[in-house]
Amino acid sequence: MQDIGENEMVTETFKFDIQTVPDEIVNITPNVERCVQKSNIKDGTVTIFMPGSTGGISFLEFEPGLVKIDVPTMLQQLFPAGPDYQHHQTWGDHNGHSHLRSFFVPPSQTVPIINGELILGTWQQIVFCEFDEKARKRTIYCQLVG
Amino acid sequence: MQDIGENEMVTETFKFDIQTVPDEIVNITPNVERCVQKSNIKDGTVTIFMPGSTGGISFLEFEPGLVKIDVPTMLQQLFPAGPDYQHHQTWGDHNGHSHLRSFFVPPSQTVPIINGELILGTWQQIVFCEFDEKARKRTIYCQLVG
Amino acid sequence: MQDIGENEMVTETFKFDIQTVPDEIVNITPNVERCVQKSNIKDGTVTIFMPGSTGGISFLEFEPGLVKIDVPTMLQQLFPAGPDYQHHQTWGDHNGHSHLRSFFVPPSQTVPIINGELILGTWQQIVFCEFDEKARKRTIYCQLVG
Repeated sequence: MQDIGENEMVTETFKFDIQTVPDEIVNITPNVERCVQKSNIKDGTVTIFMPGSTGGISFLEFEPGLVKIDVPTMLQQLFPAGPDYQHHQTWGDHNGHSHLRSFFVPPSQTVPIINGELILGTWQQIVFCEFDEKARKRTIYCQLVG
Repeated sequence: MQDIGENEMVTETFKFDIQTVPDEIVNITPNVERCVQKSNIKDGTVTIFMPGSTGGISFLEFEPGLVKIDVPTMLQQLFPAGPDYQHHQTWGDHNGHSHLRSFFVPPSQTVPIINGELILGTWQQIVFCEFDEKARKRTIYCQLVG
Repeated sequence: MQDIGENEMVTETFKFDIQTVPDEIVNITPNVERCVQKSNIKDGTVTIFMPGSTGGISFLEFEPGLVKIDVPTMLQQLFPAGPDYQHHQTWGDHNGHSHLRSFFVPPSQTVPIINGELILGTWQQIVFCEFDEKARKRTIYCQLVG
């Protein structure tokens, strides 16, 4: 165990918008990196959060096999679009699966910043997952505490 | 990307109790909001955490179709109650599925606070999920850093 | 709702290494506790993060039934090793399931510290899950903010 250091504290909050298409997985690592670079925080956490109930945030090696085929196939297998979910009776819409996916892959993740940089693994990217069945404009918040 | 501001920092910790019934999904957003209002923190994160190995915290549009039918059906499909899990051999209990559900839907989430308010989406609520097979009194912590 | 107190703030970052074998679930609670004890922070959050795209961090009662049988069986049922995932075409490797597991059980969790102690439940342990098919040396970060 190695102590990497300590510093004094502020909160800094950023937001950015992205335009999605249905079922898209978007690499938002460059956006989060820009927030980190723009801030004055050298050591602390960044919480990446999407206000909304039909999207998710997670981590993924961003290569087309996983992004376009394997993850979407798995999402469809576990939380299929198609069945007449009870949610559809409430509002007359058809995105019950979108809500289920967001419950199991929620839109909040926290990543440490050390020495002004996100400490992601070599292939590890931060992704936003559009689970909704419509194209959406999404606002994503990056809140840095450090 | 828009810089929303910065401020100086404290930690404030709150806790509250809820009484659950088996498999209940509880909307704890009003409880978390009261902690945020009671605190002096205008900008920062709130970490919502339940100490325990048979519950989860996530986000959900809180309407009966999802809360009473779709999410419980999906939990039962993916992590069924009923099979004789190996966990039951260890303690002679019957809640192996409760532990599995808590592993995949863990009891920790973090939400940004901006200008004294949680930045949840319009329909997005913070929920506690009772995965245990008994009614429980649960203590939930809200720790604000900002 | 009970206000437990407030204090002034620093960030402290620690890291430690563990050696894993394929599909191992490791109890890292003692390692995280040592970081908390070594720090000067009495009240605040600890974010536990593993940089890498084939591991996960979650919570589990650490008893052999769950750790050796129930959770691995469930992981294999939901995200099976074996199928020829599209990811394998990209790099010629065979760990598509490892990436899928890390997407659904991501390597970041946050736990509150109160009065110098992690507020875990009686049976609740923090676990690192090696999803990769090879033995790995993993570096895990504990970043305390409080």
